Amino acid sequence: MHIVITGGAGFLGARLARTLLARTAFSLAGAAPAPITRITLVDRAPAPADLATDARIAQVVGDLNELLANAPQRVLPEDASAVFHLAAAVSGECEADFDLGMRSNFAATHGLLEVCRQSGRAPVLVFSSSLAVFGSSPELPLPEVIQDQTLPTPLSSYGIQKVIGEQLVADYTRKGFIHGRSVRLMTVSVRPGKPNGAASGFFSGMFREPLAGLRAACPVPDATPVAIASPARTIEGLIRAAEASDAEWGLRIAVNLPSLSTTVGDMAAALGRVAGPAAVALLDRTPDPAIARIVKTWPGRFEWTRARALGLAADESVDAIIRDYVRENPDAVRAPAAA
Amino acid sequence: MHIVITGGAGFLGARLARTLLARTAFSLAGAAPAPITRITLVDRAPAPADLATDARIAQVVGDLNELLANAPQRVLPEDASAVFHLAAAVSGECEADFDLGMRSNFAATHGLLEVCRQSGRAPVLVFSSSLAVFGSSPELPLPEVIQDQTLPTPLSSYGIQKVIGEQLVADYTRKGFIHGRSVRLMTVSVRPGKPNGAASGFFSGMFREPLAGLRAACPVPDATPVAIASPARTIEGLIRAAEASDAEWGLRIAVNLPSLSTTVGDMAAALGRVAGPAAVALLDRTPDPAIARIVKTWPGRFEWTRARALGLAADESVDAIIRDYVRENPDAVRAPAAA
Repeated sequence: MHIVITGGAGFLGARLARTLLARTAFSLAGAAPAPITRITLVDRAPAPADLATDARIAQVVGDLNELLANAPQRVLPEDASAVFHLAAAVSGECEADFDLGMRSNFAATHGLLEVCRQSGRAPVLVFSSSLAVFGSSPELPLPEVIQDQTLPTPLSSYGIQKVIGEQLVADYTRKGFIHGRSVRLMTVSVRPGKPNGAASGFFSGMFREPLAGLRAACPVPDATPVAIASPARTIEGLIRAAEASDAEWGLRIAVNLPSLSTTVGDMAAALGRVAGPAAVALLDRTPDPAIARIVKTWPGRFEWTRARALGLAADESVDAIIRDYVRENPDAVRAPAAA
Repeated sequence: MHIVITGGAGFLGARLARTLLARTAFSLAGAAPAPITRITLVDRAPAPADLATDARIAQVVGDLNELLANAPQRVLPEDASAVFHLAAAVSGECEADFDLGMRSNFAATHGLLEVCRQSGRAPVLVFSSSLAVFGSSPELPLPEVIQDQTLPTPLSSYGIQKVIGEQLVADYTRKGFIHGRSVRLMTVSVRPGKPNGAASGFFSGMFREPLAGLRAACPVPDATPVAIASPARTIEGLIRAAEASDAEWGLRIAVNLPSLSTTVGDMAAALGRVAGPAAVALLDRTPDPAIARIVKTWPGRFEWTRARALGLAADESVDAIIRDYVRENPDAVRAPAAA
């Protein structure tokens, strides 16, 4: 089996690739299990060294829009039967640079769907949507708990572009051009590595940097609600979407992945319990209105009825999420904090 | 004031132009009333003679996508301050020809929004969306009554493309690129003239053809619910959307225009009351599964809270809708039926 991951050199893409490579066999859309013989990582950046040196990994390094226009068979090789579409410009970038978001999220997603359609092979396509499709405002407040069927009312260009992707995936699926599954990723924490341009970036940075002994921005009030999921739970959701048969998957509307409802204050407290008060003292609580403006519109409580029916679960606690990060990233954690 | 109407030579576009030309002054988005000095009709077809000979009418005849790409200033002249975007491929066409729909509805709407944005003048843009954004299925039944805030779950490519248009209009408005208003048109009946490719076409044909002494297809069961609006009520909705100030318009999500909830059987009965049993006898009740498959997913009952707050109302009765058509189209009605 040959699987494509767009954004495959990014944090989630690389982790997804590693998780898939560790599987002895993979059951795609309910079909009989088969070994994964190849994973193609499509990304602007080269893959991490461990993946780059794996014989089953192929890399296609380049701009996704250009590749789709000029070398579509490199993005979707002839024997590829599944695509995880993770490539995207992130929320903060899209808000600052409208054209970037429309190109990277709107046009690229449409272009990828067209390449899948033109292949005539109806590949499985897992589309990574986002909780950012939900935006709450005083004029149109969201319900207290978001369901799979709550009306998306995005308040960011990123959220709009993700809703449009969901709609396209639904119609390409209905028409039989792909076997599409849209999953709405929650706020992923703790992302390792460097900060990215996502408005939600501090939800990882507020753990990652203090654990490394560095100061970190935590620019919104303690009471700010947030629905988070660890990288492990997020990858589980993406993989389960690809494995589910059409009947198991059911409706073509997007599935909210499981999340743990917490607040920024509770997250800081968990950091203190795991890493001590010195870690909490590294949090810089200077408000950032640009970040707050986006983040405050995102809901903090979700129901994930369909995800639960697929066997998916949320993380147990924020403490567990932090401990997972410490265990998985020993080199990024200073010894005292990891103790 | 200079106003652009895409699809301006079509039935609704031409009627909108006539209605606007009859106004001595027009108040755009709550601004002070001003006379309409020019209306540009953009359409693949030439305008009807009465409009073509009006000195205030300018015609741009051509393919909208090509015009947007090659001569955007012809679609949005420098002094144009409002656009009614009515041009679209219709539901039946989009279902039969996926590329046509994606080009005419998805790409053209995005292209028009880009031209509006690039103008830097933030024109008022009224986007004609459709009740077809709502699709009911056994797996995901719609609520009995559709509200403005009901989740769209389109079951046709046309409906998907309209939802995407609504989302783009919302974001271009939020970003200040346009003053956008999306209105969801109900099933317009009675459309004069020739049948078009819309799956809903028979909702007009079942009145229009018998009134002209011709047989007409009425290919779905009597109990089929439908939410209809006369051409006059539909044009009122489009115009009110352009007139409303940003504050009056409020939310950026689409507005359901008012509709009269009826059924195919009640429509046939109304035809009998207005035009006699001979007219009803001209209805051909042979089922058409392709039409039924689309139409049966559309809801028949709407609430139009926001439209009502804007002063809009539904038609009084099906009988009144038919009588309006007879009065407005004397040449298309045979004398006995018009009696």
